[in-house]
Amino acid sequence: MTVLAVQPGETPADEEPPDTGERHRLTALAGFAALSLDAMASVAYGPEAIVLVLAAAGAHGLGFTLPVTLAIAALLAVLVASYRQVIAAFPDGGGSYAVAKTHLGARTSLVAAGSLVLDYVLNVAVAVTAGVAALTSAFPSLYGERVWLCLAVLTLVTAVNLRGIAESARVFIVPTVVFIGSIFVLIVIGLFRDAPVNRVNSESVVTGNVTSVGVLLLLKAFASGCSALTGVEAIANAVPSFRAPRVKRAQRAEVALGAVLGVMLIGLSVLISRFHLQPVQGVTVLAQLADASLGHNWAFYVIQFATMILLALSANTSFGGLPVLLKLLARDNYLPHVFALKADRQVHRHGVLALAAVSAALLVFSGGDTNTLVPLFAIGVFVGFTVAQVGMVRHWRGERGTGWRGKALLNGFGAVLTGVAAVVVTASKFDDGAWLIVITLPLLVLAFETVHRAYAHIGERLGLGRIPEPPHRDRSVVIVPVSSLSRLTSEALTAAASLGDEVRAVTVCYPDPEDRANLHALERAWAQWDPGVPLVQLACERRSLGRPIAAYVRDVSATEPDTRVTVLIAEVEPVRLWQRLLQNQRGAVVAHAVRRDTDAVICRLRFRLF
Amino acid sequence: MTVLAVQPGETPADEEPPDTGERHRLTALAGFAALSLDAMASVAYGPEAIVLVLAAAGAHGLGFTLPVTLAIAALLAVLVASYRQVIAAFPDGGGSYAVAKTHLGARTSLVAAGSLVLDYVLNVAVAVTAGVAALTSAFPSLYGERVWLCLAVLTLVTAVNLRGIAESARVFIVPTVVFIGSIFVLIVIGLFRDAPVNRVNSESVVTGNVTSVGVLLLLKAFASGCSALTGVEAIANAVPSFRAPRVKRAQRAEVALGAVLGVMLIGLSVLISRFHLQPVQGVTVLAQLADASLGHNWAFYVIQFATMILLALSANTSFGGLPVLLKLLARDNYLPHVFALKADRQVHRHGVLALAAVSAALLVFSGGDTNTLVPLFAIGVFVGFTVAQVGMVRHWRGERGTGWRGKALLNGFGAVLTGVAAVVVTASKFDDGAWLIVITLPLLVLAFETVHRAYAHIGERLGLGRIPEPPHRDRSVVIVPVSSLSRLTSEALTAAASLGDEVRAVTVCYPDPEDRANLHALERAWAQWDPGVPLVQLACERRSLGRPIAAYVRDVSATEPDTRVTVLIAEVEPVRLWQRLLQNQRGAVVAHAVRRDTDAVICRLRFRLF
Repeated sequence: MTVLAVQPGETPADEEPPDTGERHRLTALAGFAALSLDAMASVAYGPEAIVLVLAAAGAHGLGFTLPVTLAIAALLAVLVASYRQVIAAFPDGGGSYAVAKTHLGARTSLVAAGSLVLDYVLNVAVAVTAGVAALTSAFPSLYGERVWLCLAVLTLVTAVNLRGIAESARVFIVPTVVFIGSIFVLIVIGLFRDAPVNRVNSESVVTGNVTSVGVLLLLKAFASGCSALTGVEAIANAVPSFRAPRVKRAQRAEVALGAVLGVMLIGLSVLISRFHLQPVQGVTVLAQLADASLGHNWAFYVIQFATMILLALSANTSFGGLPVLLKLLARDNYLPHVFALKADRQVHRHGVLALAAVSAALLVFSGGDTNTLVPLFAIGVFVGFTVAQVGMVRHWRGERGTGWRGKALLNGFGAVLTGVAAVVVTASKFDDGAWLIVITLPLLVLAFETVHRAYAHIGERLGLGRIPEPPHRDRSVVIVPVSSLSRLTSEALTAAASLGDEVRAVTVCYPDPEDRANLHALERAWAQWDPGVPLVQLACERRSLGRPIAAYVRDVSATEPDTRVTVLIAEVEPVRLWQRLLQNQRGAVVAHAVRRDTDAVICRLRFRLF
Repeated sequence: MTVLAVQPGETPADEEPPDTGERHRLTALAGFAALSLDAMASVAYGPEAIVLVLAAAGAHGLGFTLPVTLAIAALLAVLVASYRQVIAAFPDGGGSYAVAKTHLGARTSLVAAGSLVLDYVLNVAVAVTAGVAALTSAFPSLYGERVWLCLAVLTLVTAVNLRGIAESARVFIVPTVVFIGSIFVLIVIGLFRDAPVNRVNSESVVTGNVTSVGVLLLLKAFASGCSALTGVEAIANAVPSFRAPRVKRAQRAEVALGAVLGVMLIGLSVLISRFHLQPVQGVTVLAQLADASLGHNWAFYVIQFATMILLALSANTSFGGLPVLLKLLARDNYLPHVFALKADRQVHRHGVLALAAVSAALLVFSGGDTNTLVPLFAIGVFVGFTVAQVGMVRHWRGERGTGWRGKALLNGFGAVLTGVAAVVVTASKFDDGAWLIVITLPLLVLAFETVHRAYAHIGERLGLGRIPEPPHRDRSVVIVPVSSLSRLTSEALTAAASLGDEVRAVTVCYPDPEDRANLHALERAWAQWDPGVPLVQLACERRSLGRPIAAYVRDVSATEPDTRVTVLIAEVEPVRLWQRLLQNQRGAVVAHAVRRDTDAVICRLRFRLF
């Protein structure tokens, strides 16, 4: 799933040169290989999701694997045709959020955006669990440790993203090609066999308590299997990454993606039926197929490794894609602008860590089980599909070009299918976690709208878009809080003298004898030093440092009009980090009080000590 | 345990008027009542600690309760005599830390200080668990919830201290007098009875597997029982709180404390022997005594409540005492100066919360059981006693006044007894938690010394104690980072013009087309506005905001000598807290980079939006 793919050249890390020139852009073939990663990865869990639902009706139910897969392939064809149209209509990319923003209004586009955010998060969890399932299918002794393995893979992906690697779409080509090649070999060889080479000697998880196959079961199998369709929209989102003529090349890549994915899904499902495979605890359906078709030899391990690497890369794309989406939302004032800040790695890191934390929670919540997460994942994806296609119907109705009715019908049909799938998955998995999505999605939309209103209010107050009044110059008084005499004091007064028309040092004095003694010592030293700056004493009965200074600042502001009051706080900054604990925090206390109680500008001078 | 008692008038809260005048100071009687709280409170757990050890040798062992108590009373006499001498020698108070600093060198004084810190922390935990034990003895149905009750009491004490109540030593007088009175009534009535009125119908926790009473068992019982002596030193630490003649009055109060405590301990132990009491799960020995002596009536409940309140107040004294000790250590440069900051409640709150958190951890660790914590508590107390008395031996040897040999002998004898007690408790309880103290104490001393060395280094660099060079005035250039045009920009330039001889607005520009368009819009608006300030464009290939600005600042500092460069960062500050999330953090990013890479003064102007 890469609803908003990382565009080649546009990297999540902050310090890469921007995309320049046509040379780096993608041909149809390269684009297909680079952008189909997520769609291909879903082959690893899509067929399994179907088999798992049908297994509830025993062997009879499993017989419906192929028909259900054919229905999904039909939906795939509709979606691919639909997204060909999206590519033509939205050559700047942007996916369902862009379509909905143009044709369905702000709120619907926010629903699409919210579902995309959820998908990015769930994609990480699903891809990691499925990747680990591929690994534990090859090495069953690791099955008990799967949650830890998932967290380890997540940590690895997170670490790589924290480092901010310069990732290029081309990196994805090799594993994608290896994976597709392996699956095709698997399918072809399997078709020539009458019986499986190997059969997994584990207990089947078929419960078999349902023997009649109802419509609802088939619908559920269909809806679960639709998770195999995630990633179909990736190419439509990345049209600007293609070489000119962009639309043509992107459309060709989209069709190629649909064809390859469809063949793989149907091929695998034929083999599942032929070898009478059943869901087995601890061994994925794909691993069983590899075993059955190729035998338990090096080829089996190649497929498992290729699957695992592809899935890890698929998880990685979320880390690239989510920031791009959040940036779009922030630019439209639906998220704090910090997400649109195109600079300085720190912000990016927070995003990576937040995504990793939520994904880790999902991994633990699911116990490392892909099949718990897939339905949740599917809900968001289908909501996005549905919104995009309803938007396209509006698009065609508005445009009324040649054959618009046919195009609108196609998109409308797709919308109905994916909408039904969304409802079926949500209803059937409500108790198993789908409630989480049902609660979270509206909350996200609400948050987006609240942020948007707040920005509108702030922009109004700031007079954004109007020329502000011209700046002027005020008399400047710089107030320097002082408590003892040292090189720091000298530095502070030099800085203050350079900034202000007038400088006043202030010190807070308390009535207690020890403090009074300190004050007298300071007064004597001050007189001896004679810096040409008055030392104002602020008597304070209560033991407070910040308040008397803030009160003095307020007082100066009130009694001396047209005066700009600045408080200059000088602090020692030791070079070693731990030594910063030794700072007395007077500066922080004063800054806090002045900031809270006054409008004065606060200057902080840090005096570096080696 | 109040090794450094809260002196009446000197309060932990930061905003109280300081102590003034003799009128508020204590007479001998008031001082005794006010400062004996902790010592009296230890009656609630001291005798129990003896009985619990001796119970290992069955009824035969319990027969040694009185002899062991008499030995402890003898030690009490030695300690009281010793502290009378400390009062005379150190009329300014300060306790074992002060004695050790004067006579035993810095490191030993730090050992004393470290053990005091541990004692303050453990005192909270011990007093709370013992207080709750008094409560659950009265209401046995609450026994299962004791950990939660302990945490509730701790929360209450913490909340009261966070509010920063103006506590006065006089507040302590009433509960102390009620408690002492009740215990005396209990003892006197008990002495007139031949058999207990009531006997608790619970199972004895006597294991009875040891039947011979060895020297080691007696030593252990002695060492455990010595926990009853905690608090004896409180008066010696608070001599300045007494009315003149201070030393005489304080000495009289100390002797009174010793006498009352000794009579209580011996009286209770006579009753324990007479009634053949045994340690019982869930009912404290003191509660059993009340039951036996007074019967299970209102008098019993009065004693339990008085005990509980006294213990809660005893826990409360740590919250007052620890900050005073930390302040002393911070003044001597052994702790970060923030602990000596006599102002602004925030700092005090951190201390209260830290103490509460560590105490809560100890409560949970001990499972709310006083007898797990008492030995740990005793170690620190005895280390303090021993250090103080060894210091006093040195004191007399140095002074060589009349009868110095006798005085030195007395203190030396006390030092040996308490030193042996410390070793016995540590060895016998090593596996049960004493290892924690053995590890923590040296670490504390190490931390104190490390901080001290760092301050010496910083003071040297700062030229503390020398008159610094006079301040001068430099040309001032104020740099204002700008990204768009609004009322905020106008405010920023006004502030900058007031502060600087020259103002330059800077904006970072990136090569990407969208950014370039934004830049052109800004340039046009700037030209139209014409603020009289140049807009410097900092081209940056990489997506970084802070670095180009920091590089420009460095560049200006390097090429324009005798110029003080100031970076003025203007930020919007919405009034609602949550809206602060909407800030784009550009200011923080720029401030971070400038602070890291340059020595420029950073000014932050916050533009309040309503």
